[in-house]
Amino acid sequence: MTKDKAGILDLLKNTPLFEGCEPSFLERLSDQSQPVQAGKGKLLFVHGEDARRFYMIVRGWIKLFRETLDGTQAVVDILTQGHMFGETSIFQDDTYPYSAETAEPAELVSLPLALVKSEIEANPQLALAMLSSMARYRKQQDQELEHRTLQNAPQRIGCFLLRLADQGSEGPVTLHLPYDKTLVASRLGMQPETFSRALGKLKEATGIKIKGATIEMEALSQLVDYGCSACSSEFPCKDLNVKKSGCR
Amino acid sequence: MTKDKAGILDLLKNTPLFEGCEPSFLERLSDQSQPVQAGKGKLLFVHGEDARRFYMIVRGWIKLFRETLDGTQAVVDILTQGHMFGETSIFQDDTYPYSAETAEPAELVSLPLALVKSEIEANPQLALAMLSSMARYRKQQDQELEHRTLQNAPQRIGCFLLRLADQGSEGPVTLHLPYDKTLVASRLGMQPETFSRALGKLKEATGIKIKGATIEMEALSQLVDYGCSACSSEFPCKDLNVKKSGCR
Repeated sequence: MTKDKAGILDLLKNTPLFEGCEPSFLERLSDQSQPVQAGKGKLLFVHGEDARRFYMIVRGWIKLFRETLDGTQAVVDILTQGHMFGETSIFQDDTYPYSAETAEPAELVSLPLALVKSEIEANPQLALAMLSSMARYRKQQDQELEHRTLQNAPQRIGCFLLRLADQGSEGPVTLHLPYDKTLVASRLGMQPETFSRALGKLKEATGIKIKGATIEMEALSQLVDYGCSACSSEFPCKDLNVKKSGCR
Repeated sequence: MTKDKAGILDLLKNTPLFEGCEPSFLERLSDQSQPVQAGKGKLLFVHGEDARRFYMIVRGWIKLFRETLDGTQAVVDILTQGHMFGETSIFQDDTYPYSAETAEPAELVSLPLALVKSEIEANPQLALAMLSSMARYRKQQDQELEHRTLQNAPQRIGCFLLRLADQGSEGPVTLHLPYDKTLVASRLGMQPETFSRALGKLKEATGIKIKGATIEMEALSQLVDYGCSACSSEFPCKDLNVKKSGCR
């Protein structure tokens, strides 16, 4: 169900980036926010366009992408609930650094960039929280580049799944992928047929169960044991830890 | 020649990130900075170590890398004059997100992280400049991932060369690579033999001249025409433009 104003305020209060921000700022932010419901394939904004809003995902999958000058589409990322996107535009000449489209029916909250920018200018603690958030993303991207060179295809899929999971979980885990698996393939820089073969190998090597878009396993260790030795981070992924965040 | 204190102050004044900062801050920063000269293979800091200093490169090449748990080295980046590294550690629990080693004899300036951090906390404009700088880097990394999927190996080398060049240049251009070309290969995620073949193809397709570690061309357009259509940015690379920076 789409968030109402009170729901949006709750969502903002529970967002690590805004932790500890003044209640009055969060109230102004939620007043200027809007719930968005969109079917599959809805274009939210286009690469290079003037950026006025950013988004938080409540439910569904969003594809971030760019198009090369000769017309090929490059998937920058696919994101699901709990993620935000478009927020870095304020540091990039106020234009979107990628296009965004719903990859499945999705529920989002649209927020005003100008208000966040003025709060960052007035509140160095929020600026530092934003810097921490961007530094974490930077490390993740560095690692993604590392994995493209050093991990095999099944390990890269395993790593993608681990990042979707609650890494503190000790029992059985169920994960949901987008229905369109070619999307996951392009996020990981694989051809669809390579992805299918690699997913089969991962299943065989780790014993995870795959039913359509649902993945089940007894414990995350099935994936950790298989892939994490070919990574420079330690499990749980260090770069996902949020030690410092918010306005305080 | 290694920079003296006056030289370091000049260097800081001409660094886009610090443009417009209070002279008193830049003087304190240069007072706490040190020139560093190092031969090839000098380890400057190690991934995960407590971060107290960051570095600016005056001359030479620096390799940033991490090691996977099973001992393989992943090259995160190779940087040359005008670049800084280690500066994002202050947003990552004050530990270095990678190791750094000189790839060739190098001249550097070592700067204190604590002073920059306290200035960011006091000066939102510097925080915004740092955010812009990180957003640019983020876009570059996104593009690097895009190129690994969509560009062929010779195009990726051409793109690497274009990023080394002054993109405003209209006449003949001379570029210098590190002597150890396997380093460039690993930066681009290629095996050394793939790199050699691809460099040969790039030379043949574009007419650039390669003499050891020196690359010469009549004009940058030789590389632009060959590779830039397989990229989502436009030449000159938008993400390299610095429109907004510094303390003002």
